[in-house]
Amino acid sequence: MKKILVIGLLLMQVIMLKAQQEDVTQYVDPFIGTQEMGHVFPGACAPFGIVQLSPETDSVQFFNEGKYNKEVYRYCAGYQYTDQSIVGFAHTHFSGTGHSDLGDFLVMPTVGKVQHNPGTIDNTSRGYRSMFRKKTEKAEPGYYAVELDDYNIKAELTATQRVGFHQYTFPKSDESHIILDLTHGIYNYDGKVLWSTIRVENDTLVTGYRITRGWARTNYQYFAMSFSKPFKTYGCSNDEKVKYNGFWRKFDQTDNFPEMAGKALTANFDFDTEEGEQIKVKFALSAVSTEGALKNMLAEVPHFDFDRTRNDVKALWQKELSRIKIDAPDEKKTAFYTSMYHSFIHPSEYMDVDGQYRGLDHNIHQAEGFTNYTIFSLWDTYRAQHPLLTLIQPKRSSDMVNSMLAHYEQSVHKILPIWSHYGNENWCMIGYHAVPVIADAYVNGIKGFDADKALEACISSANYDRYEGIGEYKQYGYVPYETSHYGASITLEYAYDDYAIAQLAKAMGKNDVAEEYLKRSEYWRNLFDGQTGYVRPKDKNGDFLPNFDALDTHGAGFIEGNSWNYSLYVPQNVGGLINEMGGKERFAEHLDSLFTMHIPDAYFEHTEDITREGIMGGYVHGNEPSHHVAYMYNWAGKPWKTAERIHEIMNTKYLNKPDGLCGNDDCGQMSAWYIFSSMGFYPVCPGSGEYVIGSPSLNEAVLKLENGKQFTIKAKKASKKNIYIQSVTLNGQPYGKNYIRHSDIVNGGELIFKMGSRPNKKWGVGDVSEPYSNN
Amino acid sequence: MKKILVIGLLLMQVIMLKAQQEDVTQYVDPFIGTQEMGHVFPGACAPFGIVQLSPETDSVQFFNEGKYNKEVYRYCAGYQYTDQSIVGFAHTHFSGTGHSDLGDFLVMPTVGKVQHNPGTIDNTSRGYRSMFRKKTEKAEPGYYAVELDDYNIKAELTATQRVGFHQYTFPKSDESHIILDLTHGIYNYDGKVLWSTIRVENDTLVTGYRITRGWARTNYQYFAMSFSKPFKTYGCSNDEKVKYNGFWRKFDQTDNFPEMAGKALTANFDFDTEEGEQIKVKFALSAVSTEGALKNMLAEVPHFDFDRTRNDVKALWQKELSRIKIDAPDEKKTAFYTSMYHSFIHPSEYMDVDGQYRGLDHNIHQAEGFTNYTIFSLWDTYRAQHPLLTLIQPKRSSDMVNSMLAHYEQSVHKILPIWSHYGNENWCMIGYHAVPVIADAYVNGIKGFDADKALEACISSANYDRYEGIGEYKQYGYVPYETSHYGASITLEYAYDDYAIAQLAKAMGKNDVAEEYLKRSEYWRNLFDGQTGYVRPKDKNGDFLPNFDALDTHGAGFIEGNSWNYSLYVPQNVGGLINEMGGKERFAEHLDSLFTMHIPDAYFEHTEDITREGIMGGYVHGNEPSHHVAYMYNWAGKPWKTAERIHEIMNTKYLNKPDGLCGNDDCGQMSAWYIFSSMGFYPVCPGSGEYVIGSPSLNEAVLKLENGKQFTIKAKKASKKNIYIQSVTLNGQPYGKNYIRHSDIVNGGELIFKMGSRPNKKWGVGDVSEPYSNN
Repeated sequence: MKKILVIGLLLMQVIMLKAQQEDVTQYVDPFIGTQEMGHVFPGACAPFGIVQLSPETDSVQFFNEGKYNKEVYRYCAGYQYTDQSIVGFAHTHFSGTGHSDLGDFLVMPTVGKVQHNPGTIDNTSRGYRSMFRKKTEKAEPGYYAVELDDYNIKAELTATQRVGFHQYTFPKSDESHIILDLTHGIYNYDGKVLWSTIRVENDTLVTGYRITRGWARTNYQYFAMSFSKPFKTYGCSNDEKVKYNGFWRKFDQTDNFPEMAGKALTANFDFDTEEGEQIKVKFALSAVSTEGALKNMLAEVPHFDFDRTRNDVKALWQKELSRIKIDAPDEKKTAFYTSMYHSFIHPSEYMDVDGQYRGLDHNIHQAEGFTNYTIFSLWDTYRAQHPLLTLIQPKRSSDMVNSMLAHYEQSVHKILPIWSHYGNENWCMIGYHAVPVIADAYVNGIKGFDADKALEACISSANYDRYEGIGEYKQYGYVPYETSHYGASITLEYAYDDYAIAQLAKAMGKNDVAEEYLKRSEYWRNLFDGQTGYVRPKDKNGDFLPNFDALDTHGAGFIEGNSWNYSLYVPQNVGGLINEMGGKERFAEHLDSLFTMHIPDAYFEHTEDITREGIMGGYVHGNEPSHHVAYMYNWAGKPWKTAERIHEIMNTKYLNKPDGLCGNDDCGQMSAWYIFSSMGFYPVCPGSGEYVIGSPSLNEAVLKLENGKQFTIKAKKASKKNIYIQSVTLNGQPYGKNYIRHSDIVNGGELIFKMGSRPNKKWGVGDVSEPYSNN
Repeated sequence: MKKILVIGLLLMQVIMLKAQQEDVTQYVDPFIGTQEMGHVFPGACAPFGIVQLSPETDSVQFFNEGKYNKEVYRYCAGYQYTDQSIVGFAHTHFSGTGHSDLGDFLVMPTVGKVQHNPGTIDNTSRGYRSMFRKKTEKAEPGYYAVELDDYNIKAELTATQRVGFHQYTFPKSDESHIILDLTHGIYNYDGKVLWSTIRVENDTLVTGYRITRGWARTNYQYFAMSFSKPFKTYGCSNDEKVKYNGFWRKFDQTDNFPEMAGKALTANFDFDTEEGEQIKVKFALSAVSTEGALKNMLAEVPHFDFDRTRNDVKALWQKELSRIKIDAPDEKKTAFYTSMYHSFIHPSEYMDVDGQYRGLDHNIHQAEGFTNYTIFSLWDTYRAQHPLLTLIQPKRSSDMVNSMLAHYEQSVHKILPIWSHYGNENWCMIGYHAVPVIADAYVNGIKGFDADKALEACISSANYDRYEGIGEYKQYGYVPYETSHYGASITLEYAYDDYAIAQLAKAMGKNDVAEEYLKRSEYWRNLFDGQTGYVRPKDKNGDFLPNFDALDTHGAGFIEGNSWNYSLYVPQNVGGLINEMGGKERFAEHLDSLFTMHIPDAYFEHTEDITREGIMGGYVHGNEPSHHVAYMYNWAGKPWKTAERIHEIMNTKYLNKPDGLCGNDDCGQMSAWYIFSSMGFYPVCPGSGEYVIGSPSLNEAVLKLENGKQFTIKAKKASKKNIYIQSVTLNGQPYGKNYIRHSDIVNGGELIFKMGSRPNKKWGVGDVSEPYSNN
């Protein structure tokens, strides 16, 4: 018996080990979302790395002689899946944003005559650009490959946190080149590059930098570029319209002169290559200095073994993605792990290996005791992306809070980030949504940051009167239409953010503060129009805006959402909202209408980042303000309808194909929605400590928590048809609440759903999440 | 008897103390050289400080739509004495250069309507500029004052090393302003400002920076600006032709918005003032960061006591100028101490108080164990300015060598500075003249730098083949005309620099190196044309250039000097030159001709920085290549003729009036010539350890050496007529050499000249300095 037991245990261990060791990176398809609206990139990056080394398929000038080119929007990530030529490989990309920037340091291998002009998308022969066949493209976490047909070069890319690693396999030629174009960029215009330099330290090492004025008002990007083989010669052109070269009379800057500088530099490095000879390029970034970039390179890639780095970064992805192990059909694994992958790109580590980084004041700071992050698309990501990280990446979540507090310290306005990247505030979108990220982290037990400082920062942000009507918000109880044409959206979001401050204060035992902000969290009521049943903008006199159209999307009091959707944005007090809207039944009908109504084409004219594929009736999944809406049936006593909507969204808005994302992934927010929803719950009201249960679609999900505990979610009999919760147990005990607390998850345990093809209308209708009342 | 002795000693002490305490700053007249060609500024600075806070009397665009405006040359220091309006007060100025740059951070107090446009020199009412009356202007070391008549404001300036300190006395007004114009600059053009920012930290503190592309290709200047009184409001304009403000939609950057950025910013800070109310502004600089600027301000001026800083900097000047105490008529004291003042401005300390500075690679470096300096106008200053510092400022001289070695370390070319400022090499003029500065310092016993590194740097600089014909120089023994149209000048100077390397190597005991460079030091012979008796450019075939005109100044093989002057540039081997030129008598005749010939007007057409007043016959004192020439009679056995020429130059080329300098002061070189010459000797061949005796014009000069010793030079009976040396004693012993060794001076002692009105043709004719033969 003992022997059998031992063998049995051993077998179990082997099975468990095997399960643990399953390569989940295989399920990630970086091409998903690279066509049309997803705005993600297919290239190589490490988890949360500052390098996103990815192909550029067009170089669009967005602003030329005062004219705006809308086409730039399609190239937020520098890439459209359907394109057939590649300009080169650039080192920085946003993942899934609805506004663009970056695309720094384009590198392109070529053969033949040196060309410094990129050519055009249709005519690659006019420049260094190359045609490629889609079938030669390969992308996986930390690796991208393609064959450049114009030159018979195979290009392979991998990356660590701070270093892009290129491997180019050349044909035989005495005219092989590697082009470095410092004029290329995303959201590019003549004038974006304020200054750039290239310094040839020796015949294998080049350093330099560029300072750009793009979406980031002043972006300092330094590099160190190391070649595996000495170049024989090099050259440079400077394509400035008006250039002043008086100081340069002694040297020809274009020919082997090692100190190039200007606003429009493109350089070539020249080689003799044998057939199949590989030239490797390591390209390290820093926001501090070229010295910092070199330090980063030496620390992260002190060799030229491409495969080693590729394997290392793959192992990193495997480790990170394995934080949630799922059991599901492969198709769902692909959707799930690709979502995980997209959720683990931003925010990105923004400091040198020694902790130095460029702060919001553009001084160099030392990150003491934390890892500094950048790329905070907070209006998007406070909803589910940050809550996801707080749940399964608590260490990083703490670091991100510290990063936002450092931003606050460095802010001349003394406020937390709104939308920040690379030491810049770009002021995009509305609200002060760093607040709920911090509150959610604190309430959910994230440690490692100064809570007093955090509360101070939140309060300071919520009282910066000159920022988008905060002064008026405090004075009138809403942001009047005169102050902002998005005043209604802003009011709703401020109210929610104020709830988050109240939660933070309450958790810290500061009840007077909690009370004050809890009051402010009810300001949504000031814009609720009982007559129409919608939230509606008001002017300073307190009169609702006339000629109100609840379907109008933009400028009529709202932004990235119409009143139909935005009126539902009271996540902190859904119960209160339902009362205003006439009770549960009317509320459920309102939701039904939203999901089934027909939207006339005219309403799409002014929206740039959603498509008809992205909507369900009037519900818009491609934009964030509705991301919690499908979960609201829970408060109406109809959780099975939540299940139906959730599954419809998962099945129709997240498709495993390049154009499978119905809207911008928004730095992981769209993906985080999927991750939560497929597990069966969602943070409708971050900061409440609660997740609202929807309907799981995975057979099993095991959260491997950083505290060493595991939380297992099983959905028994889950299938395409069996989307309805029949019953639930938590750690073996029957569970009737339609929400689950964060603490229940992180304490470890097992949540078991029994699923069926028909609703159990008795489950989950009694005990709903009530953040406002419970405060 | 004892009592009397004691009283006598006491009296002597009092007299000595009084002598020591004499305020020598009173003899400095900063206006000397501010008119026409001197190119010095009248404003306030501390000795060797990086801040030169001085009025700007015009703002000249030198480069507009591809056209060059020669007028910019007159405003190298931002000021012309005869102008009657002031644009404002800027914080950085070159002293006496023949090329311009800087003029950073213009501050101007105004009253009335806010104006961001400077107005014009003739019409101040169109801008913030003001008229002023010359009689209200006052300048002394570390202090400048003027009354701005347009506004009834008295402006006073003082400065520490890193901080400009303004004191403005306003009239009563509720429209008092202080303007900060970041578009203003010297050597300005549309495009010079690559980027600039202004950050209003609070209502008394503003920080910011600008990055310019001027003569310095990339100049980073950061500031911190502190007001003694809170401003009530502020504003900003951005005068860019094409600007992109997409990221700025939420705020009005022009009105009280604390984060201004752009390429053409001008800001106003607004006050209510009572009659006679003083507003003080401290303006600290840093090349590192705004944080560095703030650190500098707190360290150097932690208060708002203008008079205290004014007195402190005056005391500093008194201390520095007292390194040489002289006895002479007041008129000579003025010329002498004003020269001392001009010699103690550059090179300038270029690091923050904590030793951080921006290096040539634009990374931030820490100066370990030395003070880092910038502004090395070496083609000018290696001749006498650096030798002067080596003699009377040995600590700074050592720091300057270390600064040049740091430059070498940071140079991608691995060479020493040519003409460097603010972390940039501007490549101005010819030669590798950091070499003789280092050799002179080492040979003369300056400690505190790594001699091996220094020799390595010198050799590396002398073998950077792509720099102005060094490769050909080594190959042909001269720089051929095809390679450079200044090839003859270059060859002569390389040969001298090579002598300096030989001296350094020899002093280090590296005889093989010494031998190699001593050989190169004779390459001047390769261009000496025995037929014409002049140095003459050669082509690659070894043929002298035909149609040779020894008077032609520019491009015919020479630069800033014609063959007449340049043929005498063999300071390392005057004896050898005299042999080539046909012996002592012919040589003396050649010198006589030079000093007495008539130069046709046509030859002045192409020279920009000398005037007819600056010449004596064909001898040009306004340019440096001839600075040693008057001393060459010594080798011809006619030292009394040296005396005559020296006195003529001193009496006619150094006048105590605004237009009293006959050429650019060139960062102290012209002044250092005067200091040496008036004491009676001059470093004809730096690196030789010897000074050639001329003819003293001071009754007495006491060098208070850093080693604690004193060296006294007395010229008994010296007067306007008594310019001829009758006899000399050194420490009481008769002295017949017409040169004196550095070691004799720094060992302390007394050199006594007996002067007379007629030459003693027996003195000084036997033992001449022979650097080459003695090596």
